Amino acid sequence: MSAAAAASAVRRSILVVAGIGDGSGTGASTARLFAKNGYRVAVISRSPEATSKTAEGINSDGGEAAAFPIKSYTHEEIHSAFNAIKGHWKDSDIRVGVFNAGSGVWKGFLDITEEDLKKSLDTNIVAAFGFARESILAFKDLPLLDGQKKGTLIFTGATASVRGNKVTSAFAAGKHGVRALSQSLAKEFGPQDIHVAHAIIDGGILTNLTKSFNKDPEWEENVAKRLDPNSIAKSYLYLAGQDRSAWTWELDLRPAHEKW
Amino acid sequence: MSAAAAASAVRRSILVVAGIGDGSGTGASTARLFAKNGYRVAVISRSPEATSKTAEGINSDGGEAAAFPIKSYTHEEIHSAFNAIKGHWKDSDIRVGVFNAGSGVWKGFLDITEEDLKKSLDTNIVAAFGFARESILAFKDLPLLDGQKKGTLIFTGATASVRGNKVTSAFAAGKHGVRALSQSLAKEFGPQDIHVAHAIIDGGILTNLTKSFNKDPEWEENVAKRLDPNSIAKSYLYLAGQDRSAWTWELDLRPAHEKW
Amino acid sequence: MSAAAAASAVRRSILVVAGIGDGSGTGASTARLFAKNGYRVAVISRSPEATSKTAEGINSDGGEAAAFPIKSYTHEEIHSAFNAIKGHWKDSDIRVGVFNAGSGVWKGFLDITEEDLKKSLDTNIVAAFGFARESILAFKDLPLLDGQKKGTLIFTGATASVRGNKVTSAFAAGKHGVRALSQSLAKEFGPQDIHVAHAIIDGGILTNLTKSFNKDPEWEENVAKRLDPNSIAKSYLYLAGQDRSAWTWELDLRPAHEKW
Amino acid sequence: MSAAAAASAVRRSILVVAGIGDGSGTGASTARLFAKNGYRVAVISRSPEATSKTAEGINSDGGEAAAFPIKSYTHEEIHSAFNAIKGHWKDSDIRVGVFNAGSGVWKGFLDITEEDLKKSLDTNIVAAFGFARESILAFKDLPLLDGQKKGTLIFTGATASVRGNKVTSAFAAGKHGVRALSQSLAKEFGPQDIHVAHAIIDGGILTNLTKSFNKDPEWEENVAKRLDPNSIAKSYLYLAGQDRSAWTWELDLRPAHEKW
Repeated sequence: MSAAAAASAVRRSILVVAGIGDGSGTGASTARLFAKNGYRVAVISRSPEATSKTAEGINSDGGEAAAFPIKSYTHEEIHSAFNAIKGHWKDSDIRVGVFNAGSGVWKGFLDITEEDLKKSLDTNIVAAFGFARESILAFKDLPLLDGQKKGTLIFTGATASVRGNKVTSAFAAGKHGVRALSQSLAKEFGPQDIHVAHAIIDGGILTNLTKSFNKDPEWEENVAKRLDPNSIAKSYLYLAGQDRSAWTWELDLRPAHEKW
Repeated sequence: MSAAAAASAVRRSILVVAGIGDGSGTGASTARLFAKNGYRVAVISRSPEATSKTAEGINSDGGEAAAFPIKSYTHEEIHSAFNAIKGHWKDSDIRVGVFNAGSGVWKGFLDITEEDLKKSLDTNIVAAFGFARESILAFKDLPLLDGQKKGTLIFTGATASVRGNKVTSAFAAGKHGVRALSQSLAKEFGPQDIHVAHAIIDGGILTNLTKSFNKDPEWEENVAKRLDPNSIAKSYLYLAGQDRSAWTWELDLRPAHEKW
Repeated sequence: MSAAAAASAVRRSILVVAGIGDGSGTGASTARLFAKNGYRVAVISRSPEATSKTAEGINSDGGEAAAFPIKSYTHEEIHSAFNAIKGHWKDSDIRVGVFNAGSGVWKGFLDITEEDLKKSLDTNIVAAFGFARESILAFKDLPLLDGQKKGTLIFTGATASVRGNKVTSAFAAGKHGVRALSQSLAKEFGPQDIHVAHAIIDGGILTNLTKSFNKDPEWEENVAKRLDPNSIAKSYLYLAGQDRSAWTWELDLRPAHEKW
Repeated sequence: MSAAAAASAVRRSILVVAGIGDGSGTGASTARLFAKNGYRVAVISRSPEATSKTAEGINSDGGEAAAFPIKSYTHEEIHSAFNAIKGHWKDSDIRVGVFNAGSGVWKGFLDITEEDLKKSLDTNIVAAFGFARESILAFKDLPLLDGQKKGTLIFTGATASVRGNKVTSAFAAGKHGVRALSQSLAKEFGPQDIHVAHAIIDGGILTNLTKSFNKDPEWEENVAKRLDPNSIAKSYLYLAGQDRSAWTWELDLRPAHEKW
């Protein structure tokens, strides 16, 4: 085999990350970190601006990323996005999916409308099922990567994934549902060498949004009080790198000074 | 106060039970047991036949029951049913709600359609939110009953409420969501003297449906191998009777010989 | 068979309860409630005075109880106590064991001595193993009672059974250990028709001790703020009465207004 | 400050690992991996031979390790070992403690003796408390390392840490106790920038011991069927490297093909 053929035989790995908010949180940090570690990065999100901005930022830093904005997280839209990703990088394989989408509502129970609830179920559970489906379909016929696994699918969870609290009934319903999905998938697809993990983010993440809510410079600056999205991204890179002799379904992540 | 006035002042308690399948399971057993213990019983379900049959059976046994069939568990339909119940027994108060509805699907993940999933979310989570809403609205302005509580709301859970397994991703997503709701409600409304409980039914329940699936006389006859819906009903009556100094959010129920 | 013989063939049921503190808490309430429900009651505890007082109180109320004080909860002492109980009521069978012993220590971790820790392990875990052993040996060759079960073994747990908190490391280690035991036993002996249950008491119990600590009349009088030991006892009577088609391993009990 | 002084000011980090069995499992793998990553390694264990062999192996590979055998895991012996470690490397700081000791017993409940139980409590819980105490005392007055944390304390858990099974009552009591300790410590010392983590090893680990038990070449060779102790060690190195904005209390580790 010629050197050129050998090189062409080495297929690159693609990370698909869904959900990047305004581009200042976990999704964007994950995209950047994986890009720096050699992944091609496909960004899926409902904000065309944030999606483009995140991809462009990676590209101008020497990475390779592309934006795949969608209108909503229906199965059909996610399916189209994955098809577009596969078409965009034909010499590469989707090897990691990070589902970071979802939205929350914090209201007393009697103020939650059926619409609030359905939105929580759609953006959390239905979206997660669609993303999981496309990820697993993308992984399942691939050869093992480095003799270890076909792919890694990671879900971003929250305190609400494991605990229902006073004003979180709709959000917790959505997040509990995603966690149940992740556990079912871990059990079904582990034996097929597909790694499914769930991260419980148990604290506030430092993003533009939380900064503007909190308006508290001490909170922003004290690394022990809020989660740095770059640190969450590191845990995802670690999970993606675990070998199949000892991999993790679930871990929690919280700031050192968090009360829990 | 005259004897007549005194009598009229004693308002009867209503149980509203939602979800009775074909009338051979937990919902119907709960309806009958509460009726025998002095409750007026309102039966909500999507099967007009099973709803009527259950109510009629109670009435012919000397109890008082009425059927409130609905087309689907939308918030609007549940709201109408509760209104009809209040109108039906104006001298009584809704004091116990048992949410026993929901439906499952057992399929490998890749065979689950978006429609399967949405059905699971609608019949489990959306329905539970609607039923909880109407129950809590019915309870919240009532005086304490026997100096203890305003009302009791019980959710029927399953193994899938606490564990995602290989073929249960959609069902577990729905059931985890209902459990999250029940915990949020227990925390929000406990301080308002409304008791919210969640029962994890961790085994097969003896119903016409499971009999026809299992076709196993030994399983049917061995009380230690499957749950008797009448025994589940007893636990609900016990929960409804707990005083507010020591009440239960969650208990599990399983047959003695179940492997777990 | 003569009527006298028939009567003599009906063997009475004995409750053995271990751990009654000063006689104002869960253990004593359990003893009294089971006595009122027809059980002969054997009281095991390290306080000869409280043990006697509790038994005498039951006897003067028309029940039947006897005191079996022990020096410490070693396996040998518990074994002797069970032997004495069997000798005391030869025409009766031990059918229910309630393990309510144990002691706590609330200290910052660095202030906990090896002695504190060992005391917590001895009074919680070692004692629970010894009590469980004798209970199960007493149950295992009995016929089913009412066609349902050979016996019921109940453990009193606490918040510390399921959560380690800042000042509870030694107590939580002990209580987690008892919970693990109870789950192992439930799985091993359920198939032998022995019912093992664990109650998580998630709040303050109203006893002479907690009254003197809290010195708060509002807390004492508000039934929604602290657990009434009589209400806990009712849950134990309920558990003992569950049939083997649907029995509970674990339930939580907390006051309505508890924050959790 | 001179260059020499600056260099001397950079203190090396010490890993203390307790529990290495015969030197073929998690403890020894952890020792080797941390040594390769620049840590000085102190090995504590009850086997003088395995302790020496592990330390010597590291030294001959160009690492730095020393053996600190103890007779048993009493608080006094562990205290002496830590003192000896501090004396051995005066220019270094203990920064990571890995508690990997403990022993199990797999027996039906009625076959477990009080001695079996006490051994389980001593080697798991009492030992863990002693090791935790010395680790935290070693960390607490240190400056932050890299501006992040004072030290990391990791406990090796097992399936029995979170589930009591039929033949694991004594082992599960011990392991549940250690988990409770780890959670209490995480909550108490997180705010003091000490990181406490707990790893649930949910499957069989490939060691000389398990090889000789299983006698199954397929099991040994199939990386997806048993945990490689080197992979567990990698997770510990990852945990020790987490920054304090997002650190993990608990993660699970299992082979890809494990049934759970």
